[in-house]
Amino acid sequence: VKVPENTHLTADDAAAFAECTLILSAVPTQYMRSVWERLQQYVPAGVPIISVAKGIENQTLLCPLEIIRGVLGAKGKERAMAAVSGPNIAGEIARRLPGTAVVASNNSEFARRVQSVLSTEWFRIYTNSDVIGVELAGATKNVVAIAAGVLDGLSAGNNAKAALVTRGLVEITRLGVAMGAREDTFQGLAGLGDLITTCVSPEGRNRWVGEQIGKGRKIDEILTQMRSVAEGVATTRSVMMLAERHQVEMPITQAVHAVLFEGTEPRIALAELMRRDQKAE
Amino acid sequence: VKVPENTHLTADDAAAFAECTLILSAVPTQYMRSVWERLQQYVPAGVPIISVAKGIENQTLLCPLEIIRGVLGAKGKERAMAAVSGPNIAGEIARRLPGTAVVASNNSEFARRVQSVLSTEWFRIYTNSDVIGVELAGATKNVVAIAAGVLDGLSAGNNAKAALVTRGLVEITRLGVAMGAREDTFQGLAGLGDLITTCVSPEGRNRWVGEQIGKGRKIDEILTQMRSVAEGVATTRSVMMLAERHQVEMPITQAVHAVLFEGTEPRIALAELMRRDQKAE
Repeated sequence: VKVPENTHLTADDAAAFAECTLILSAVPTQYMRSVWERLQQYVPAGVPIISVAKGIENQTLLCPLEIIRGVLGAKGKERAMAAVSGPNIAGEIARRLPGTAVVASNNSEFARRVQSVLSTEWFRIYTNSDVIGVELAGATKNVVAIAAGVLDGLSAGNNAKAALVTRGLVEITRLGVAMGAREDTFQGLAGLGDLITTCVSPEGRNRWVGEQIGKGRKIDEILTQMRSVAEGVATTRSVMMLAERHQVEMPITQAVHAVLFEGTEPRIALAELMRRDQKAE
Repeated sequence: VKVPENTHLTADDAAAFAECTLILSAVPTQYMRSVWERLQQYVPAGVPIISVAKGIENQTLLCPLEIIRGVLGAKGKERAMAAVSGPNIAGEIARRLPGTAVVASNNSEFARRVQSVLSTEWFRIYTNSDVIGVELAGATKNVVAIAAGVLDGLSAGNNAKAALVTRGLVEITRLGVAMGAREDTFQGLAGLGDLITTCVSPEGRNRWVGEQIGKGRKIDEILTQMRSVAEGVATTRSVMMLAERHQVEMPITQAVHAVLFEGTEPRIALAELMRRDQKAE
C-alpha cells in the first residue's frame, strides 16, 4: 500500500502534535500506557482524541480510552474522545473495498465530526453513544477469533465455526452487559459485524494465531515470528479476569485460555466445548 | 459419500412408509405440496414427521410444516411434527465434522425424541419450542446468502460481507418477530448460526447462485445448470410479499429481488445499499 503524498510521517514526538486538530491513536492496547506517558506532555489542550485499538490492558483491565484519559489526568478530563471500531480488516480498506465502522463517543457532536472526517463513498461510519460497549466488543471478539482459528487449524469446518461465532457472541455480550454495555451494541457492526470478519478473513491476525495453535504450534514460537500484534492473546488473560470479577460464564474464553496458557490440547478443548450439556438453546 | 448399508432406498411410495416409525421429509419447499399430495394416502396414522426444508411456498407464503399439516388435513391434526434446522452444510456432516442443529416442535416430548435419535458425538442437537421462528429463520437466511454471494462475485471483501450479515440478521429478525417468532431464535443456531455458514461456506448453494449473479451471469442460465435446488431464489419472492404484508422494511431482500428478477445491476444494488442514510446504528 502506498502512503498518500500529503501524509507526513515523523518519529519526533513534539513535531507529531504541532498544530494538530485531531489525534488518532493506533497503539496496541498493551503498549498504550507507556507510549502515552511519553507523549502526554506534547498533547495540546482541547484537541480531541480517537483510539482504534481493540484490547483490554492486563494489569488494570481498562479499555483504550480509559487508559488514555487516565494517563492525561487533568488534561484528559474535559477532552472529547471517541473509539472507532467495526469489521475493518485493514488490507481491504486500503484497497478501497466497501466497509463500515462505528464511532462511539459520549460527545455526540464530536462523534458526528469523526463520522464526517472518516467517511468516504466506500467507507460508511455510524455513530453510537455506548463507548464501553464498543470498546469491550472490539476487545473480546479477538478471543473468539482465536478460537475460530483453532477450528481452522483442526480443519473442523464451517458448521462448527458458525456455532462457535453464535455462542461466542452470546458470551461476550453477557460480559459486556454485566459491565454496563448495551446488548444491541454487540448485535451491531462493532460486535457481530467485527466478530464475523475477524473469524472468517484469512488476513485476521488473531484468527491466524489460533490456526497455528490448532496445527499444534506453541504460542511463544508463533508470537516471536509475527511482525504485527495479535491483541487477542493478551486480551484473553484480561477477559478471563473480568469474567471472574463479574461472575459471567464464558466457556469459549476459558477454552482459549486453556489452550494458550495451560497446555490443553486444542482437540481436547474443542471436544469439551461440544460435550457441554445444553439441551435447550 | 457412501450411503450406509443399512439404509434402504426406494422409489415405491407405499414401501417407503411400510412399518415406519418416524418420517423425515427432505423435499425442497416449492415441491413439497405436490409430493405430499401424492404421498399422503400412504402415511400411517400417528407416525411423527420431521421436515428439514428451508423455504416459504410462493403461492401460499406457508412454511414447510404448515404445508404438510395442510395437505394431511384430518390426518395431520394431532400428529407430532418438528422442523430441524441450523448451520448444516451437508458435505461437512457427511464427513463427520463437528456440527450443531436445532429441533423445533410444539411437542416437547417429540423434540427430545428427535434430539436423541439424531444426536451423535460430533452432531449436537438443541431443542426449541419456537417452530415458526426456526422455520422462518431457515428460509429467510437464504435470501441474505444470495446477497453474500453477490458480494463474493463482485470481490467486495469480508468487511462488506460482515456488515451485510449483521444488517441481514436485523431485517430477517424484524420480519420473524412481526410474524410471531421469538427474537432469540434468530440470535441462535437456527438464525445467526445458519446465516453465517450459509454466507461463508464455499459449498453453500444459495451463496453460489449469488456469486454467479455477481459475476454477471443471468439467473435462468444459472438455475438451468444446477443439479441441486437453491431454495433462496424462490424464497426471495415469498419474503418480499411477506415484508409488504407485515409492513417490514427489508432493504437487503429488496436488493436481492431487484438483482434476481428486475434486471438491476449487482454493482448498482450494492452501491444503493451502501448509500442508505443510517447515521446512527
